[in-house]
Amino acid sequence: MTEAVHDVAHLGRVELLTPDLTASLGFFVDVLGMGEVERVGDSVYLRAWGDYERASLQLTAADRPGVGAIAWRTTSDAALERRVAAVEASGRGEGWSTGVAGHGRTYRFTDPDGHAMSVYYESLHFEPSGDRAPALKNQPERMSTRGVGVRRLDHVNVWCRDIDANSAYMADTLGFRVSEQVVGDDGRLVGSWLHVTPKSYDLAYGRVDPAGVGGRLHHVAFAVDAREYVMRAADVFLDAGVPIECGPAKHAVQQTTFLYAFEPGGNRVEIITDGRLLLAPDRPPVTWTIEERKRGQAWGTLMPDSWFTYATPPIETPQSR
Amino acid sequence: MTEAVHDVAHLGRVELLTPDLTASLGFFVDVLGMGEVERVGDSVYLRAWGDYERASLQLTAADRPGVGAIAWRTTSDAALERRVAAVEASGRGEGWSTGVAGHGRTYRFTDPDGHAMSVYYESLHFEPSGDRAPALKNQPERMSTRGVGVRRLDHVNVWCRDIDANSAYMADTLGFRVSEQVVGDDGRLVGSWLHVTPKSYDLAYGRVDPAGVGGRLHHVAFAVDAREYVMRAADVFLDAGVPIECGPAKHAVQQTTFLYAFEPGGNRVEIITDGRLLLAPDRPPVTWTIEERKRGQAWGTLMPDSWFTYATPPIETPQSR
Amino acid sequence: MTEAVHDVAHLGRVELLTPDLTASLGFFVDVLGMGEVERVGDSVYLRAWGDYERASLQLTAADRPGVGAIAWRTTSDAALERRVAAVEASGRGEGWSTGVAGHGRTYRFTDPDGHAMSVYYESLHFEPSGDRAPALKNQPERMSTRGVGVRRLDHVNVWCRDIDANSAYMADTLGFRVSEQVVGDDGRLVGSWLHVTPKSYDLAYGRVDPAGVGGRLHHVAFAVDAREYVMRAADVFLDAGVPIECGPAKHAVQQTTFLYAFEPGGNRVEIITDGRLLLAPDRPPVTWTIEERKRGQAWGTLMPDSWFTYATPPIETPQSR
Amino acid sequence: MTEAVHDVAHLGRVELLTPDLTASLGFFVDVLGMGEVERVGDSVYLRAWGDYERASLQLTAADRPGVGAIAWRTTSDAALERRVAAVEASGRGEGWSTGVAGHGRTYRFTDPDGHAMSVYYESLHFEPSGDRAPALKNQPERMSTRGVGVRRLDHVNVWCRDIDANSAYMADTLGFRVSEQVVGDDGRLVGSWLHVTPKSYDLAYGRVDPAGVGGRLHHVAFAVDAREYVMRAADVFLDAGVPIECGPAKHAVQQTTFLYAFEPGGNRVEIITDGRLLLAPDRPPVTWTIEERKRGQAWGTLMPDSWFTYATPPIETPQSR
Repeated sequence: MTEAVHDVAHLGRVELLTPDLTASLGFFVDVLGMGEVERVGDSVYLRAWGDYERASLQLTAADRPGVGAIAWRTTSDAALERRVAAVEASGRGEGWSTGVAGHGRTYRFTDPDGHAMSVYYESLHFEPSGDRAPALKNQPERMSTRGVGVRRLDHVNVWCRDIDANSAYMADTLGFRVSEQVVGDDGRLVGSWLHVTPKSYDLAYGRVDPAGVGGRLHHVAFAVDAREYVMRAADVFLDAGVPIECGPAKHAVQQTTFLYAFEPGGNRVEIITDGRLLLAPDRPPVTWTIEERKRGQAWGTLMPDSWFTYATPPIETPQSR
Repeated sequence: MTEAVHDVAHLGRVELLTPDLTASLGFFVDVLGMGEVERVGDSVYLRAWGDYERASLQLTAADRPGVGAIAWRTTSDAALERRVAAVEASGRGEGWSTGVAGHGRTYRFTDPDGHAMSVYYESLHFEPSGDRAPALKNQPERMSTRGVGVRRLDHVNVWCRDIDANSAYMADTLGFRVSEQVVGDDGRLVGSWLHVTPKSYDLAYGRVDPAGVGGRLHHVAFAVDAREYVMRAADVFLDAGVPIECGPAKHAVQQTTFLYAFEPGGNRVEIITDGRLLLAPDRPPVTWTIEERKRGQAWGTLMPDSWFTYATPPIETPQSR
Repeated sequence: MTEAVHDVAHLGRVELLTPDLTASLGFFVDVLGMGEVERVGDSVYLRAWGDYERASLQLTAADRPGVGAIAWRTTSDAALERRVAAVEASGRGEGWSTGVAGHGRTYRFTDPDGHAMSVYYESLHFEPSGDRAPALKNQPERMSTRGVGVRRLDHVNVWCRDIDANSAYMADTLGFRVSEQVVGDDGRLVGSWLHVTPKSYDLAYGRVDPAGVGGRLHHVAFAVDAREYVMRAADVFLDAGVPIECGPAKHAVQQTTFLYAFEPGGNRVEIITDGRLLLAPDRPPVTWTIEERKRGQAWGTLMPDSWFTYATPPIETPQSR
Repeated sequence: MTEAVHDVAHLGRVELLTPDLTASLGFFVDVLGMGEVERVGDSVYLRAWGDYERASLQLTAADRPGVGAIAWRTTSDAALERRVAAVEASGRGEGWSTGVAGHGRTYRFTDPDGHAMSVYYESLHFEPSGDRAPALKNQPERMSTRGVGVRRLDHVNVWCRDIDANSAYMADTLGFRVSEQVVGDDGRLVGSWLHVTPKSYDLAYGRVDPAGVGGRLHHVAFAVDAREYVMRAADVFLDAGVPIECGPAKHAVQQTTFLYAFEPGGNRVEIITDGRLLLAPDRPPVTWTIEERKRGQAWGTLMPDSWFTYATPPIETPQSR
């Protein structure tokens, strides 16, 4: 048996595309309570107060909503070299870029479905000062008390046309492990959750894209500390006029407590908390059948159709969303 | 302006009818964490650990599920006499009974829809001993750590055929105040929530019975301390195989956090928590229109049809529930 | 047995004196998350988002910290007349004033220890608009997401020289009920907690003033919804540089979860949550002996000396505080 | 720069010695809510419901309380071989044992202070059945609703005579990383917290043993999901007569929420929750000075002397504990 690869440390940054940068920025800053770090070109870089790196979210003005680059930090520079070699061997590499907003050199590639991804190791840690300096020095920044006050970027959930291929690619090339998966009656995956940290997932291929389009986003997720704060987030969304899609409730797959809503640019955002840590080095993936999935969410919560059909960029039909 | 009547102190006890007394008892003791107090005839008397009276729930073997007597404690013996006089004047009085399981003399009556109700004042406070003695003497009983561990009986929600008439009866005769209500397009009530305590409601006429049947129950509710415990209750129900109907989520009307499930006898039970206290002596009822109600629950939670159609005793059709 | 009086509805407003109005205002607005309503003379009127009246806190510039007027709302205008008659009969009445910041005519008096108190009935309810309008119309104002975001004024705790006299005065004249008390070895009260609502207390005479000074304040308390939010308040205080005195922890007396800190003017403020409702109309006071009190707080939390010795205005000695 | 070692996966099992096995067992089963797995010789093996291995706690009858073997699971069999080679090279190895209660072959060694430790890789996962089978198959066992209901073993905190030496040994030989540390005025460590998972620590050398004795235990910790459950644990302890030493409160070092109490055998147990994940591969240790440590716990909580002086086995003096 080959030993597990520990080369990717965690999800570092997600780029969201938005047709209304000003409104999206207002949402992430005023409602989610994130902080602006810097602006470069058409992008604004933001961070959650518990993120140790400078910026975990990049908002970029675009014609349509969707996900841009998904950046993974490696555990070392040598690990970066190893992963780049593996990516290059896969034929999906796109070359090196100069990193931005605290990131050092960055190697770009795409997953088989075409989602833009990258790996990097060098990263400036956030250095808080003034109003953002926390009382306790073991904290990256003062706790945000604006709106929801999300603690950190948690994961990204994307759709793709071939989950077997994409899940296997991330496992084989980057060293992700599958924690849970759903297998269709034909034996092919219809959902795959992967992790590099002991969190239950850092990346999900949540659904075979029913529109057959590549590179789409289901949601990006930000974590809070306890289930009460997921409920409080729903209260904050309600007063702020943020369209809640569903939740708070509990997923059966992964058991995370979720709340889904739409940011003004049209992308779906999740507020999440998770009580579990997957510490077993030999944990086999938990595999759910279609029959088991029919039982739905953990508490039987009814989900709206949009949750199964809407991704960004949306398909341009009159009925979309 | 006449002054408000302060003659009814609180909901004291609810009788639930069950076709499976053993299974229902198991649910309330093992899953909800209530404690048995005594057995009299076909009834078992139970209490939640935070209830100060001996027993707040009476489980009675019956052919079909439903609600039996709903007993209200008055603020004094003089208050009891006043309310009995008012009830007798209304023509709905049924006479005095000897109280049971800690209650003194009890006067029985029905609301216009036929729900069995009663008023009483004399009541034995629970005297904990042995394993049930709490560490702090200002607590009725040791906190229950079995299952959900509900703290106290909270309210009862019944359906009736004429909400205007029933709500007005409870207000005029017993001194209940309406805290919130829903008015139909024809100007008639389609929901009314009433209270005698600063809790937002102690009694609800939740819906005009779509089956046109009298005396039915929507649910009886038990309170926990915080929203986290409503979520924990859902986890407990999940593992215990209790059928969850909906929730945890937040009502728009009254803003209570709810979880609905069915006890083995077929009655619906709610686990509730409520952050609000209605302290204003001159608070007008909050009135919702049908249009406003269409927005649904506070966070937009989808509710299953059963929540709008199922009450106990159920209507005997093949499709019921 | 005489029936209980239901003439005082709840604590309506507390006036805090502060030698640094600007700093105190910053604390209550930015850290506690209260909202400014209006300014009259040397006073700024504030409210918590869950308070239904216009203003529950009056901050007044003064040489020294301390408590000014403590205003109680009656349940009706007739109730107001009855209480004023009782106060006048007691010889402690000081006459009528025109109310301010939403209050109608107000009758002033002092408790035997000299604390300024008043009763009033007419009161404008807060009418939210613009940014302060909530999504749900059964809520007085949009939930505050600034800092702690306290929900409502809860109670006031004052020291006095003769607790028996003061406690009895509030019971006999205003209709307060004693929920819990501590009796010294000489049979005299050394602590008394009184309520007019089903909350466990609205007013406390917490300690015989060790300095023998009259009219001093131990603390004013604001409520949050759950224990988690008391802990969150401590985190907010920590980052904001607010001096925490003690807590979060749980009192044995009354079982409330507490957090004590000092606002910049020098007054002690408590953040509190309480899971109990005292619904029994015949609940005898819970009486604690000195011996029982030696067991301390519920979980054995060590309390600093200041909590037993510091009140406002402080005694001017080098050691004070 | 050498790359980090990822050979130790997590803390697997802690052995506690107890002079009253029956009473200790009652505490861990009835109060903490753990489950018994098997008995071998003088030992009873227990598990928390969220632990994936068969048993995470071994209770062993002994003359005096204290800690026995502390077992660490490696990430693979090859990793086990590497760590055993490193331990043997250090001269502290004691040889292989047959594992018990689900563990495969186990290599024993001691840290420089003499604490018995071991490493193993092979481990049976717990297979729930009957009453212990959870509703969701991605959960090791049904959630415990007995007492506190701890989710999992979290960490062990031991004292030693030379923290520099012990901390360095675990780092160099086993691959632990120091997340936080306290440095004395003489430049030597007076506290060191180490981790192999992204939890903020899995092992702590909490204090230079003031008695100069080797191999002593400060506490073993079990995790719950949220701060509310740490408070609930204190309520459970209160009613169960468990001596609470201090907390719930928040550490400044590591920011964990803590509650310390004594199990009947005399060992200190901690209930903990932690909102942080240390995901940075290049996070330098946070170093606190003695001066900084004088500020105490995060919220200024006063700690009793025992917390700084009592460890197990206790020093046999009349004043001990």
